[in-house]
Amino acid sequence: MNYYGNPITRLIEQLAGLPGIGGKSAQRLAFHIIHMPPEKVEALAQAISDAKKQVRYCSVCCNLTDDDPCPVCANPKRDHSTIMVVEDPRDMAAYERTREYYGVYHILHGAISPMTGVGPQEIHIAELLQRIDENVQEVILATNPNVEGEATAMYISRLLKPLGVKVTRIANGVPVGGDLEYVDQVTLSRALEGRREL
Amino acid sequence: MNYYGNPITRLIEQLAGLPGIGGKSAQRLAFHIIHMPPEKVEALAQAISDAKKQVRYCSVCCNLTDDDPCPVCANPKRDHSTIMVVEDPRDMAAYERTREYYGVYHILHGAISPMTGVGPQEIHIAELLQRIDENVQEVILATNPNVEGEATAMYISRLLKPLGVKVTRIANGVPVGGDLEYVDQVTLSRALEGRREL
Repeated sequence: MNYYGNPITRLIEQLAGLPGIGGKSAQRLAFHIIHMPPEKVEALAQAISDAKKQVRYCSVCCNLTDDDPCPVCANPKRDHSTIMVVEDPRDMAAYERTREYYGVYHILHGAISPMTGVGPQEIHIAELLQRIDENVQEVILATNPNVEGEATAMYISRLLKPLGVKVTRIANGVPVGGDLEYVDQVTLSRALEGRREL
Repeated sequence: MNYYGNPITRLIEQLAGLPGIGGKSAQRLAFHIIHMPPEKVEALAQAISDAKKQVRYCSVCCNLTDDDPCPVCANPKRDHSTIMVVEDPRDMAAYERTREYYGVYHILHGAISPMTGVGPQEIHIAELLQRIDENVQEVILATNPNVEGEATAMYISRLLKPLGVKVTRIANGVPVGGDLEYVDQVTLSRALEGRREL
């Protein structure tokens, strides 16, 4: 029922279509937006519109960016001979926050998942293969440590190895700061397998 | 840090400024928006912008509306001699959903709350007083059953009684479908006080 008039109802419907926002949250957000100062509302609407219009894929690494190539690919100080393959821009951001990685990235925008109908063609693997030339020394597969991520890493490694490039996978093990008691058995086994001499 | 480029970062910041949306949710929403079809993104941005521009207060009842007077106030089939006073448009919507109330409303947009600096001048009490004339038979105070709502109801009733209008307050009692075991003591006492003969 339309108790609030069309513009509010339309806004509530639009907000309720976003992930993680239910009917009640959408109502609360809508009333918050109506009580915000007009310039802040315009800034929000503009940011939504701009993000969609201005953001595209980096032609090199498929990262989302407003500049092409993206700042990482355009940075001559990065090590362009090492490519870290991640599923998502957020995974890239997570590695950037470590400040320990100086190579470049390749963003797949997903993982192979036959269950949800995502095949190798649906993610940006072809673009990765095109980047492999004599300047690329190593490809680090940093897809998620779950079934889809592992399958994707295996698939990519089989494509890359014939090209003569070194392919590595990030280590499995116990998370730093965690409590062994709460770590699952598979992780504990992997941590044991991957033990290093001190 | 700006790992995603300016438009995405700006969108994340804008979304994170909304109530109940933290940094992680804002990121998730932003990436969802970027992957939405362009026409859906424009519809969302437009709904936000329109809601703020087109929505104003009804000059009669202070409801949020795009038509003035609002559909309830403009409806000749409603009983304009009975005014229900609520704190918020959502409270009005809750009573509309009951389909049991045929009078009109007055929306205060808040409750008197000295703790947060909301005095009688900050909410729409003056507009309510202006509506009271010989045609108004009853004012039903349906502010929330909490400290602020009760105080607001008491304050308004003291202003209205000298005007010779009947002033009532919605009943306190045990909620229908609830379990007595889980009802607080104050509510149980009120339910006992308000008992009715069958």
